[in-house]
Amino acid sequence: MASQIKRLFIGRPMKSNAIEGEKLGKLKALAVLSSDALSSVAYGTEQILLVLMTIGISAIWYSIPISFAVLGLLLILILSYRQTIKAYPAGGGAYIVAKDNLGTATGLLAGGSLLVDYILTVAVSSSAGTDAIVSAFPSLHDDRVWIALTMIGFLTLMNLRGVTESASVLAIPVYLFVVVVFILIGAGVYRYLTGQMVSHITPGADGALSGISLFLLLKAFSSGCSALTGVEAVSNAVPHFREPASRNAIATLVMMGLLLGSMFLGISLLAYGYGIVPAEQSTVISQIAESVFGRGVLYYIIQGSTALILFLAANTAYSAFPLLAFMLAKDKFMPRAFMARGDRLGFSNGILFLGLLSAALIVSFGGNTVSLIPLYAVGVFIPFTLSQLGMMIRWIRLKPKGWFSKFVMNTIGMLTTLLITLIFIVTKFSQVWIVFIFLPVVIWIFYRINRHYANIADELRIQLDIDKPITSQGTIIVPVAGITRVVMNSISYARSLTDQVVAVYVGFNDEDIECMERKWAEWNPGVRLIVLRSSYRSVIRPLLKFIETVEWKTGNSGQITVLIPQFITKSWWHNLLHNQTSLLLRAHLFYQKDVVVATVPFHLKK
Amino acid sequence: MASQIKRLFIGRPMKSNAIEGEKLGKLKALAVLSSDALSSVAYGTEQILLVLMTIGISAIWYSIPISFAVLGLLLILILSYRQTIKAYPAGGGAYIVAKDNLGTATGLLAGGSLLVDYILTVAVSSSAGTDAIVSAFPSLHDDRVWIALTMIGFLTLMNLRGVTESASVLAIPVYLFVVVVFILIGAGVYRYLTGQMVSHITPGADGALSGISLFLLLKAFSSGCSALTGVEAVSNAVPHFREPASRNAIATLVMMGLLLGSMFLGISLLAYGYGIVPAEQSTVISQIAESVFGRGVLYYIIQGSTALILFLAANTAYSAFPLLAFMLAKDKFMPRAFMARGDRLGFSNGILFLGLLSAALIVSFGGNTVSLIPLYAVGVFIPFTLSQLGMMIRWIRLKPKGWFSKFVMNTIGMLTTLLITLIFIVTKFSQVWIVFIFLPVVIWIFYRINRHYANIADELRIQLDIDKPITSQGTIIVPVAGITRVVMNSISYARSLTDQVVAVYVGFNDEDIECMERKWAEWNPGVRLIVLRSSYRSVIRPLLKFIETVEWKTGNSGQITVLIPQFITKSWWHNLLHNQTSLLLRAHLFYQKDVVVATVPFHLKK
Repeated sequence: MASQIKRLFIGRPMKSNAIEGEKLGKLKALAVLSSDALSSVAYGTEQILLVLMTIGISAIWYSIPISFAVLGLLLILILSYRQTIKAYPAGGGAYIVAKDNLGTATGLLAGGSLLVDYILTVAVSSSAGTDAIVSAFPSLHDDRVWIALTMIGFLTLMNLRGVTESASVLAIPVYLFVVVVFILIGAGVYRYLTGQMVSHITPGADGALSGISLFLLLKAFSSGCSALTGVEAVSNAVPHFREPASRNAIATLVMMGLLLGSMFLGISLLAYGYGIVPAEQSTVISQIAESVFGRGVLYYIIQGSTALILFLAANTAYSAFPLLAFMLAKDKFMPRAFMARGDRLGFSNGILFLGLLSAALIVSFGGNTVSLIPLYAVGVFIPFTLSQLGMMIRWIRLKPKGWFSKFVMNTIGMLTTLLITLIFIVTKFSQVWIVFIFLPVVIWIFYRINRHYANIADELRIQLDIDKPITSQGTIIVPVAGITRVVMNSISYARSLTDQVVAVYVGFNDEDIECMERKWAEWNPGVRLIVLRSSYRSVIRPLLKFIETVEWKTGNSGQITVLIPQFITKSWWHNLLHNQTSLLLRAHLFYQKDVVVATVPFHLKK
Repeated sequence: MASQIKRLFIGRPMKSNAIEGEKLGKLKALAVLSSDALSSVAYGTEQILLVLMTIGISAIWYSIPISFAVLGLLLILILSYRQTIKAYPAGGGAYIVAKDNLGTATGLLAGGSLLVDYILTVAVSSSAGTDAIVSAFPSLHDDRVWIALTMIGFLTLMNLRGVTESASVLAIPVYLFVVVVFILIGAGVYRYLTGQMVSHITPGADGALSGISLFLLLKAFSSGCSALTGVEAVSNAVPHFREPASRNAIATLVMMGLLLGSMFLGISLLAYGYGIVPAEQSTVISQIAESVFGRGVLYYIIQGSTALILFLAANTAYSAFPLLAFMLAKDKFMPRAFMARGDRLGFSNGILFLGLLSAALIVSFGGNTVSLIPLYAVGVFIPFTLSQLGMMIRWIRLKPKGWFSKFVMNTIGMLTTLLITLIFIVTKFSQVWIVFIFLPVVIWIFYRINRHYANIADELRIQLDIDKPITSQGTIIVPVAGITRVVMNSISYARSLTDQVVAVYVGFNDEDIECMERKWAEWNPGVRLIVLRSSYRSVIRPLLKFIETVEWKTGNSGQITVLIPQFITKSWWHNLLHNQTSLLLRAHLFYQKDVVVATVPFHLKK
């Protein structure tokens, strides 16, 4: 039953060698990997305006130079990551690059912040997508959490089905979003230039803004940098690309940069030109669309595709998180379970883990995870910086032809992202301080896991030429509660394996014990019966004591086996009718004694 | 840890032969067994008045003759049950008496309705007790559910500790209640006679009550009979009494009848004399106490002891339910688990089951289970009737000396309780119809359980002289994932038991398989390695298929054993770091194959 339901949702299991067909072409890759970056357009401008609004409406003018600064940063990042992809064709995520060049600890710092960040991506993106829907349909406001959770559930299922199929489904809305945003920008600019639109605010920069400080401008700039989250996705996913993987990845990265840059700039300019300020009930994009088209069909298409691409942005994390978890698991810093490929060749455990954690975030923040955007952005810029630093060290170390210009490029990238990280920390400390608690904890967990695996490997390692199996005579103990077919089966089985078989009976009163001894003698199964008396009505304690006695007698020479019969009932509720002593006994023996527990099934037919 | 917490709350385990010391003397028995009956005083009068109020305030007069009728019924019940206790010194609950004389089906009908009733007792009594508290402290109104649940939790713990200790704790409030009610009645009567109290309503019976019908009078009478719930408790619990059990039980029964009768009559008369009518915010007893003493210290003592005895009424069910469940389990109509005595010699499972179910009722009715009183009363009168009928048949069957007068006594009892049951059903059908659905279901479950146990007994029974253990050569299969100390241990163990050992390796790709085969040859442990190739990355499916092949080869001649190594980690979280394939494999093998699963523990030291 369970497996049929699983098949319905997940699909048929796929053979391991089917993995090559699952790889991504450029256009599909753009859809899968760029939705995170492109969707940032939906909130990037708004984040800048929110900070500037704290100064006053005339400060809005500053959004224009800030947007150009963000654009410049985007250019630097694209150029830097182009070099990373070339240098790491097997996948150049910040974890790999940092570990490779800066050592394991730095790699784990980058990897840890990325992992946390992917979870935030899913939560923030699905909340922002829900905001877009709620802007269009305010009556849905109370269902925010459910809308976000439904989308997370849907994405989790799609990703469990496998990456290509989900890419096919997801490509359409990504391109739809790109097209409608360009239509919006085109129509908006046309209306502005033809004077059909009058701005509500006086275009500023009149020098009257005495209250504005460098601090607030930097804060607004760093807020705008949240539009750049997701740029790193391509470099992490190089092995997902069809051959030639590096070239395809770089082409995808450049395409993404062009789209993101022009859309972000367009929206920022329109917002300024139309004099739009952030509002509680309606997002900036929603306001622009309403100003340009009114609340008509086009407005709803824009809101719908914005919502869709935000939900798909979450999908980027669904490609990136499991892959990074796999790499960390391969290096023994995360549980081995993250290395297993599921029926459809995706890393199912990573996908499920990501889905559950982000859903938990949505629930605990009541769908208001948009407040996590600063945290999310700082979590991205830490690995950005480390990755650039790693590349710098790499150029110095390897010194390939023309390395110096590449070194300079990465140095510029590193310094810029470091600067932004610092700006984030200084200007938004109250929102990002938790990173300084959380990241050390994550890294500590990585090391604990690693040490555990290393210890186990030590314990389990044997020398093939020296360590060989040794046989020894063991004892089989058969606890019996009466003389039944189950007992007969167990004794038959035990006697087939060894002659040293002991049956043990635990009696609660003299009558029972006497009766049992008499019947046993009559039956005479060729096995000695040991009778234990329990004054406390417990079967387990006397049995454990008896096993201790046998252990003491046999010393270390022979392995003790305890044979436990287990009823396999025909229907689940029948289990309620049998004292589950055997389960309890097994658990006790497991954790307290070094004995083999052999469970002899007795399949009840009725 | 868990066992230390258990010990703190429950106490040291007790030896089985300590049970004699746990038995009840008369005064303690009166405390434990009569609280249900005595506490009915808290709501019996109110139930009558509630019905009469639907006619009009002048109908209140009828509460006096109705109270006397209830008193007469009490007398009949006491006399009848006196005979039952004498005839069934080993415990004459309705289940036993009905089963013994009227056949199993009728016994189960009585037993089933009593079981359900005990659960209702706990729920109704703790709700009514909460009402008494809330009457005194109206600000606690919103905490009703928590107050009731706390009391149920407390009672469950006390009963898990054992019956004598709880009797000692419980005797004080029962006697306190009796004393304060008599003080209340005495003071009330004195004030009434000295004319310090003026009734608010005109004492009626002026013939002007044209609206009053026989139907409503009967309804009011049957409502008053709810004051008699709990009378049967003594007869169920005869084996709990100290020797001479029957005589002690009868003495207790009579004492209880006297107390109950005089208290009930006193409250009814006072309520009439003081012209009290039921109110939403304050119980009848609370109003009487307020009229007599004002809201002083005595008022709060009365409310407090009313609340206490109501909570203790629930305790009656804690003695009766587990004992009845034990009897039903002994006759194989309920799961065997209800037969086990816990550390403190109580039937722990019955106590816990009762606590959980009544807590669930409290939660689902939001603490308003007082509305269940009619259901609760009809559930008591069904077994009352059946028990009397059983006694009648018994007298006819056995015909001891002087049987006829006893027969007449029980006939009167039977007819009266039957009549009341019918009145209940006719006048309160809308509140009690669910009984006609619920009881058949409970009885059907009893029979299903019984049939299951009978089937199993058939399947398990062997003939001692014919069926003997037979030995046969079996095969041990050792799944291996590599060459480690764990594998070496498992193979050593398997080889100690038999020569037919096969190691099985499931590989996912050619490299792994080749590497494994090479290393195995190098190690050469004296056991053949079978390699299976899995294209679907599943270990379990190829293994199940392989076992099928072995089964097919060996036929029915030898038992197959699968050896599964299991890491026992030092700390719980380490378990997260190991793929729990062995658990999954064990579950699959259990339910799908007839193989012995032997778990070889490997205790990790680090």
